[in-house]
Amino acid sequence: MEKFKRLPQHIGIIPDGNRRWAQSNGLNKQEGYAHGIDPGLDLYRLCLELGIGEMTFYGFTVDNTKRPSEQTAAFQKACVDAVEKLKDRDADLLVVGNTNSPLFPKELLPYTERTKFGKGLIKVNFLVNYGWNWDLNYPIKNDLLHSSEDITKGIASSGISRIDLILRWGGRRRLSGFLPIQSIYADFFILDEMWPDYNREQAYRALRWYQDQDVTLGG
Amino acid sequence: MEKFKRLPQHIGIIPDGNRRWAQSNGLNKQEGYAHGIDPGLDLYRLCLELGIGEMTFYGFTVDNTKRPSEQTAAFQKACVDAVEKLKDRDADLLVVGNTNSPLFPKELLPYTERTKFGKGLIKVNFLVNYGWNWDLNYPIKNDLLHSSEDITKGIASSGISRIDLILRWGGRRRLSGFLPIQSIYADFFILDEMWPDYNREQAYRALRWYQDQDVTLGG
Repeated sequence: MEKFKRLPQHIGIIPDGNRRWAQSNGLNKQEGYAHGIDPGLDLYRLCLELGIGEMTFYGFTVDNTKRPSEQTAAFQKACVDAVEKLKDRDADLLVVGNTNSPLFPKELLPYTERTKFGKGLIKVNFLVNYGWNWDLNYPIKNDLLHSSEDITKGIASSGISRIDLILRWGGRRRLSGFLPIQSIYADFFILDEMWPDYNREQAYRALRWYQDQDVTLGG
Repeated sequence: MEKFKRLPQHIGIIPDGNRRWAQSNGLNKQEGYAHGIDPGLDLYRLCLELGIGEMTFYGFTVDNTKRPSEQTAAFQKACVDAVEKLKDRDADLLVVGNTNSPLFPKELLPYTERTKFGKGLIKVNFLVNYGWNWDLNYPIKNDLLHSSEDITKGIASSGISRIDLILRWGGRRRLSGFLPIQSIYADFFILDEMWPDYNREQAYRALRWYQDQDVTLGG
């Protein structure tokens, strides 16, 4: 396996392009999501092999749920199926999202507390029915501010650590609401390939680039 | 002048690479900042000609002030000089940053209230001794939350609107704490050139790319 001078501790993944991929492969838009599960599992295995400590997948957002219901149902199912497939693979799983909504899949409720499967070798975080505004306002709405002067310590996603590298598939160069606090100092790497066309060479390309970036944390 | 199908309403500018430029031109690191003023003025004039409504410059941050004092003094002076040069050019100026610190240049205090020069044609925002953590915690520290349930409405930078396009010079692909709330849906365009080597062709390259991006605001 390829060696790197320096690896990110925590990778964020924005697996975009499922609908565009579906359309360019003669499928209906919502059929793309099911093709995004195996790529995620392979990227998970790669991170396990490399010894990366934490990864966070952008499942779906509160913004996304305004889409047609057949799409909403398809990406909800893809998130549930992805978590199901992760179960026997030594992940330390946390699902973060607004559970006070019928759009949050009930099957994932148990994992809103971090849950170790097997050896629990990597922290894997899934954002499911996540909203940046919900995340940041969580300490206010839940009256948690007495316990902390710093709002960023009490946010809904406070169980997710600072991100070093964000990989976005599908060519768009934006965060689209992905964990604004944890992404403050992250390096962004954009892949023009659609997420269902993921392969390891794409991840290696990002890691090769990342190893030569300096880390300043704003200093 | 080149025409665009669609222009950003609000551009964020991260003018990075001043120190690297200085070193590669046989100067001391801190000498780079003075060479970053005229590029900013030219980009301002270009935005004025194009009819762009708002621009925000990343001056310096609380993180940056941990650097050697000759650098701190140099970037403080560059910010003051830049604002001085803007004065007779029809800007609608707002300086945002932590004024409760000796590192905030006193000369800029009057502009922490938005100030129209001449016709006030473009909103120009300068982040000076800015910190993302300071920004987000502002409503709590100043007991402003009673007036608003949504923390993002009371942040210190609430006079700065949502950003459509962020241009970063100097090749690094990261936000480095730049306005996390306003950058949520922004498109990022990275220029590998150092900021003192700015020219209009670089800005055009970014605008040509931007006009073909879709705007989804997370939807």
